[in-house]
Amino acid sequence: MNNEFELIYEGKAKKVFSHEDPEKVIIQFKDDATAFNALKKAKFEGKGRLNCLISAKIFELLEKNNIPTHFIELKNENTIIAQKLNVIPLEIVLRNTAFGSLCKQTTIKSGTALKKPLIDIYLKNDELNDPLITRDRIELMNIISSQDLDSIIYQTIKINEILKSFFYSIQLKLVDFKLEFGYDFKDDIILGDEISPDNCRLWDLNQTNDTIVSLDKDRFRNDLGGLIEAYSEINQRIKDFI
Amino acid sequence: MNNEFELIYEGKAKKVFSHEDPEKVIIQFKDDATAFNALKKAKFEGKGRLNCLISAKIFELLEKNNIPTHFIELKNENTIIAQKLNVIPLEIVLRNTAFGSLCKQTTIKSGTALKKPLIDIYLKNDELNDPLITRDRIELMNIISSQDLDSIIYQTIKINEILKSFFYSIQLKLVDFKLEFGYDFKDDIILGDEISPDNCRLWDLNQTNDTIVSLDKDRFRNDLGGLIEAYSEINQRIKDFI
Repeated sequence: MNNEFELIYEGKAKKVFSHEDPEKVIIQFKDDATAFNALKKAKFEGKGRLNCLISAKIFELLEKNNIPTHFIELKNENTIIAQKLNVIPLEIVLRNTAFGSLCKQTTIKSGTALKKPLIDIYLKNDELNDPLITRDRIELMNIISSQDLDSIIYQTIKINEILKSFFYSIQLKLVDFKLEFGYDFKDDIILGDEISPDNCRLWDLNQTNDTIVSLDKDRFRNDLGGLIEAYSEINQRIKDFI
Repeated sequence: MNNEFELIYEGKAKKVFSHEDPEKVIIQFKDDATAFNALKKAKFEGKGRLNCLISAKIFELLEKNNIPTHFIELKNENTIIAQKLNVIPLEIVLRNTAFGSLCKQTTIKSGTALKKPLIDIYLKNDELNDPLITRDRIELMNIISSQDLDSIIYQTIKINEILKSFFYSIQLKLVDFKLEFGYDFKDDIILGDEISPDNCRLWDLNQTNDTIVSLDKDRFRNDLGGLIEAYSEINQRIKDFI
């Protein structure tokens, strides 16, 4: 990144730089991968570019469906221009199928199709390992108003409908995904962060048997190999479809 | 315990035996203490007796205040006769002051007086280490109906009012406590388990300065010593008052 831009924040998978317009930021997608709250780390050359391209397409799809997002435009293949947000420190996870941490914290069996989507909310706090949080705890901590939380949950359910149907049309099953929201300069709630195989579980539906073939970060979490091939496959299917 | 009674269930702190009346059980309080989901274990001679006597008095107090409990009568100093319940596998924790696990899972500082009581619900499951659970997960797992959960929360808030005021009158601050409920033979929701310094945090108000003096299981959790002395002190204050 050109040094005319100031690094505002560096996260596990992205760097955020200032923009000449104070209402905008530049977000650069990194090749780093982390899992289990950064206990496991690696670098995959090309991951940043793929997540950036996939996210850009998904944000465009959501915007077309009247979901406000922070995405403005691609700056280059691993960088986007986005609206600057006051990020809400919550991770909103929507699950269509039970998998991962849910099955370690409940007696629900891995792979169970959920009758209705489950929303789990986590406190975005690395030091505390992003713990599961209840509505009452959110209220107690004064993180956001109950009304804004309802609005985020409503948006998340709408986003699920759009994404589930989109991914299905490119032969992918949307198992679950994580969203982050923030307030823009007008104090409106806007979808932020990224939407990529780093934070969506996507299973390949192009399978003749019932085997689960993960085309997402589970390839890294569970040492399955072929992460870049999986992300490239997702990027290709999106490009071919849109 | 006489071998005419059959051991139905053995928990970490109690044994439950059958009773000749199928709607009743005999509950024997053990001297065992466990903490951090049984990672830490010890035995304190006399603890079972003290928790039994304290619980009996507290259950009587609650019954007088129209809270239905499983307690019927003392059989001897470490054994009670109780209604047989179909126990709901949830632990309902009410917190008046932030302490313990809450402060490890949020940014709320230890010792913060909460503007209104916080209710945290945990799944009662030793294998899963009794994880925090959300209302949505409870609904998904079909543990109880949303209406019954509301009723349990309502009862818990009422119980807090009664206990907070009672403990205050014997110079104890009720920091937090854990309850368990179950269905009786008529399918009514009834308070079960025990109410003792094993599952209530009680701080001594007979202090000239602001030092926290725990008269509860934190003496064992945090290696403070003097557990039996603390429990005896609680039992004595209750006996002197009631």
